[in-house]
Amino acid sequence: MERKYSVILGNLGNTCDRFCSSYKTNPDTMDMLKEAAAIPHVEGIELVGTWDIRPDNAHEMKNALDGIGLACVSIIPDLFADKAYWKGSYSSRDQKIRRQAIDYTRQMCDIAEYLDCKTINIWPGQDGYDYLLTADYAQERKWECEAVQELANAYPGLVFALEYKPKEPRTHSYLARMADTLLFAHETGCPNVGVTIDTGHANVGGEVVAESIVLAKRAGDRLAHMHFNDNYTAWDDDMIVGSIHSVAYIETLYWLDKCGYGGWLSMDQYPYREDAAGAIGESIQWLVKFDAIQRENKTRIDELISLGDPIETSRFLRSVL
Amino acid sequence: MERKYSVILGNLGNTCDRFCSSYKTNPDTMDMLKEAAAIPHVEGIELVGTWDIRPDNAHEMKNALDGIGLACVSIIPDLFADKAYWKGSYSSRDQKIRRQAIDYTRQMCDIAEYLDCKTINIWPGQDGYDYLLTADYAQERKWECEAVQELANAYPGLVFALEYKPKEPRTHSYLARMADTLLFAHETGCPNVGVTIDTGHANVGGEVVAESIVLAKRAGDRLAHMHFNDNYTAWDDDMIVGSIHSVAYIETLYWLDKCGYGGWLSMDQYPYREDAAGAIGESIQWLVKFDAIQRENKTRIDELISLGDPIETSRFLRSVL
Amino acid sequence: MERKYSVILGNLGNTCDRFCSSYKTNPDTMDMLKEAAAIPHVEGIELVGTWDIRPDNAHEMKNALDGIGLACVSIIPDLFADKAYWKGSYSSRDQKIRRQAIDYTRQMCDIAEYLDCKTINIWPGQDGYDYLLTADYAQERKWECEAVQELANAYPGLVFALEYKPKEPRTHSYLARMADTLLFAHETGCPNVGVTIDTGHANVGGEVVAESIVLAKRAGDRLAHMHFNDNYTAWDDDMIVGSIHSVAYIETLYWLDKCGYGGWLSMDQYPYREDAAGAIGESIQWLVKFDAIQRENKTRIDELISLGDPIETSRFLRSVL
Amino acid sequence: MERKYSVILGNLGNTCDRFCSSYKTNPDTMDMLKEAAAIPHVEGIELVGTWDIRPDNAHEMKNALDGIGLACVSIIPDLFADKAYWKGSYSSRDQKIRRQAIDYTRQMCDIAEYLDCKTINIWPGQDGYDYLLTADYAQERKWECEAVQELANAYPGLVFALEYKPKEPRTHSYLARMADTLLFAHETGCPNVGVTIDTGHANVGGEVVAESIVLAKRAGDRLAHMHFNDNYTAWDDDMIVGSIHSVAYIETLYWLDKCGYGGWLSMDQYPYREDAAGAIGESIQWLVKFDAIQRENKTRIDELISLGDPIETSRFLRSVL
Repeated sequence: MERKYSVILGNLGNTCDRFCSSYKTNPDTMDMLKEAAAIPHVEGIELVGTWDIRPDNAHEMKNALDGIGLACVSIIPDLFADKAYWKGSYSSRDQKIRRQAIDYTRQMCDIAEYLDCKTINIWPGQDGYDYLLTADYAQERKWECEAVQELANAYPGLVFALEYKPKEPRTHSYLARMADTLLFAHETGCPNVGVTIDTGHANVGGEVVAESIVLAKRAGDRLAHMHFNDNYTAWDDDMIVGSIHSVAYIETLYWLDKCGYGGWLSMDQYPYREDAAGAIGESIQWLVKFDAIQRENKTRIDELISLGDPIETSRFLRSVL
Repeated sequence: MERKYSVILGNLGNTCDRFCSSYKTNPDTMDMLKEAAAIPHVEGIELVGTWDIRPDNAHEMKNALDGIGLACVSIIPDLFADKAYWKGSYSSRDQKIRRQAIDYTRQMCDIAEYLDCKTINIWPGQDGYDYLLTADYAQERKWECEAVQELANAYPGLVFALEYKPKEPRTHSYLARMADTLLFAHETGCPNVGVTIDTGHANVGGEVVAESIVLAKRAGDRLAHMHFNDNYTAWDDDMIVGSIHSVAYIETLYWLDKCGYGGWLSMDQYPYREDAAGAIGESIQWLVKFDAIQRENKTRIDELISLGDPIETSRFLRSVL
Repeated sequence: MERKYSVILGNLGNTCDRFCSSYKTNPDTMDMLKEAAAIPHVEGIELVGTWDIRPDNAHEMKNALDGIGLACVSIIPDLFADKAYWKGSYSSRDQKIRRQAIDYTRQMCDIAEYLDCKTINIWPGQDGYDYLLTADYAQERKWECEAVQELANAYPGLVFALEYKPKEPRTHSYLARMADTLLFAHETGCPNVGVTIDTGHANVGGEVVAESIVLAKRAGDRLAHMHFNDNYTAWDDDMIVGSIHSVAYIETLYWLDKCGYGGWLSMDQYPYREDAAGAIGESIQWLVKFDAIQRENKTRIDELISLGDPIETSRFLRSVL
Repeated sequence: MERKYSVILGNLGNTCDRFCSSYKTNPDTMDMLKEAAAIPHVEGIELVGTWDIRPDNAHEMKNALDGIGLACVSIIPDLFADKAYWKGSYSSRDQKIRRQAIDYTRQMCDIAEYLDCKTINIWPGQDGYDYLLTADYAQERKWECEAVQELANAYPGLVFALEYKPKEPRTHSYLARMADTLLFAHETGCPNVGVTIDTGHANVGGEVVAESIVLAKRAGDRLAHMHFNDNYTAWDDDMIVGSIHSVAYIETLYWLDKCGYGGWLSMDQYPYREDAAGAIGESIQWLVKFDAIQRENKTRIDELISLGDPIETSRFLRSVL
């Protein structure tokens, strides 16, 4: 499988946290686009709804992408930064808000079709809960499911890639890990509902990414998209790939191939205090390196997995790292 | 729903860890049984295969249970302490070991029928992996599934309650959390495959137990059994209920009722250095207390969940704790 | 010891996270002050430097506090929200920034003296590191120590209460847990350097708060201030006291008394989506409740601690909760 | 600094956990010794008291070590597997047990002197607590300190290396992390009390090992010994070095040199299901590899640490891994 690397445009923008409202400056969308295109290996871009892409700039964006030679890999509707969704979007207990979230996503789907973008990456970050005995888990999950169902049925030509994350901004998200997101996808009954793995979210969820890839494969080939970054496992630190872990990425890329993943490898980082293009470029270079290792050693890795001896695996890894 | 409390017989036995081989003494099975029966509210017992129950003592056990007035709530085949399964039981890469694990479980199923016990509680603790690039996640999960399928088809009158746990003794278990275990249950295609929640395992997995109960309900009413204990969330400390958390148990019991759970509330602790009967008795007394709170305040809790205001929920909790 | 409750003024303000820039609105400082004063039991206020208190409004603030009858419990210099300190304040590798941070803190110390406030609560949130092989741990800790030394020597009438936190906004903070902060305090050689426990920070650090109180006592009676909130232990969720844990607060208050703590109990929450005054008020009410329990049962708790039997402790807790 | 590699003899023995009492077989001590000596680079051995070394076999052991050419790097008194210490050794509330623990350790100190072994590695694994409101943290820490004081004063020619670990077998250990162990060492007032870093214990404690090395350096050059292994950070998995992490070891070795550490690099693993000699040998080979990287690039690493740019650090790491 030939690799296709992309990046979320917003990664090149300003950063903040709940303490400091701005660590950098707010760059112009078109400047960010040029910066993204200049990162080696980058061929695609993910756009966040409202921030990067709206009905009013869709035409301009199409031209810009064409001009610069980048594919629009996905649109990520903004269901997390818009204050309207502060207590949930598709699962809000307010019927009007649920309607608003769906209608807004439809708008993004229309733009996706216009941009020839095949994937809507849904990260319903505000859909979840914080305090015990304050949420109707059954009802809210039902609403969440009905919303995705409506969207997936309305846009059969698009893939709805659900991005799970255990927590943040809520202490508990409804789409928390691979397996519950697959259950959710099944529940929609729609073939065009898949899952996005963010490697950092998976770490926080206690998952081994390679196993999550296999889970998605076995549950109807539902892996739709990949977001890459690294962290210390306790939180979504959104760091450069390879900063903390090495072996895990080799295994991840090996299983992506083995499960026939043909989608994009997209960088999703949050370079609070780092040069964004530099940090993203580093992640891609690490992935290129790890990918070469597993490609050149597929037969040996097949044997190691069949053998199941950690010492032989260790010996191999020492020889290639 | 009237509550039925039970305990795993082995909880009353010796304890050890990887450093110290014995903290207590090895009591006689029949003595443990009497001790269990003497704990207030206990009406049922769970037996671990081989340790507590075997073909050779099934008749004697049946008489003992009848005599003492305890129901056999479940049999837990020993797939975790038998060295034969050190690298997996149903998912072992050794075909003979897989066969042995299945045949052994069938033996336990036969005894269950003889004892009029409806539930086989399957905790495949050794089925998982430790090191990256040493396991064939796809193949091993397939074997695991085929084994449970064979068993569930062979014993349609029994419920196979799969007990998930994120880790220990392996660094990663195949049945790790509620959602992947539900996916697994679906994959078997058998209606008599359900899930056991161990509240401590759920904590370690980052779950809110009440939400896991709802997940099981929504995925075909698959909640088959409950194991209770408490921990600090980072590890399966198997402590007395209520030692660390309080509110979570009130919520758990409320949602068990709401989802129509009619099964047993079984204590599963590991009182390393405590009087076992005392520690188990305390857990039950805490649950009786938490249960009374939620039963007497169902309407109020309904309202709070519908309202979704953490301050009102806090006010209520202060008034009842 | 009579309890004195206070609150950090900013808790009543707007909230945000790295995704959503504003969940609420920005209230006026004086309005927040009135709201704080109206919370039952609140007698003191903590002011964040620059945000709440500056040379230009010190006089007005003094009058306002006098008028409303609130003591200024501490000033918290803003070393975390000011972009200048994005890569560290006292430990910045830029000598000018270190100087700026110290001079700014001195300004806050002058105001503290003017307001008759005895405590400077130092939370150097940006002082730490994110990536491996990018920080000179030895040099940066030395700078951090020299800064606190200079301040503590310059203002012998003030107590410098160092607030530790394992992470956020950096992946690793220099003042991370109780014990390293005590080592740091010793290293300054200044008697007026103490430690602030934030109960949530301690949870995240894997500490039992009561033991941390004892550590501070044994290391020269260095406990200077207390911040209260609750969380799920994995992250600084800054929730209402008692939302998740109960027993831990009873133990905490008991050991505060036993170690002769005479300072304030201050609420430090971050009510992202809740009514702030309501959420803070609930925390205080829970503490009042937990405090009454331990005060009324001191002799029994003394016995339980001397006995060391978790079953007896559990029995007691059931009788008082 | 020339590296000296060693191993804990017991690593080559049987393994078990709280479920399975034996994964392997119990090898003869002298056979394990030969196996250890055959691992490339191994020049020293650590002996666990009672298990490996006792008054009755000290002479035989001395001859065996001389014959095989291994230095005795440390003796580790068994304060964790002996049931007598199940509720604490030096900090037990039973005065007789405290005396027994001290006298037993003295016996081990005598043997150490006889074997020309300079280090007593103290891991008081049972000293801590499990349940809230059951331990007198102040009194028990005092006892613990007095015991180490008595020992260190009695054997001024030995170094007492205190090995910290946040938990297991207790839910909370008294010697939990680097900083509290340094505070404890200071409290003894003895110059021959130091600290052992077990890299896995540090991970579980949320520490970056390199920073812990610096803490020990700054607190009076107290780093006395190093134990190496790897884990997933949530638990003391005691795995092969390099299985999960890579960069961290490069940084660790760099800072060991920078802080002038001249002691042993000892392997401390628990190869539950792996060939022990193979697993230990792999760890050493990884360390040799990581060590070569940092030695050959010291100037560059100095620059990177002075620069503090994660992108440049990443670029460097890609070029050497």
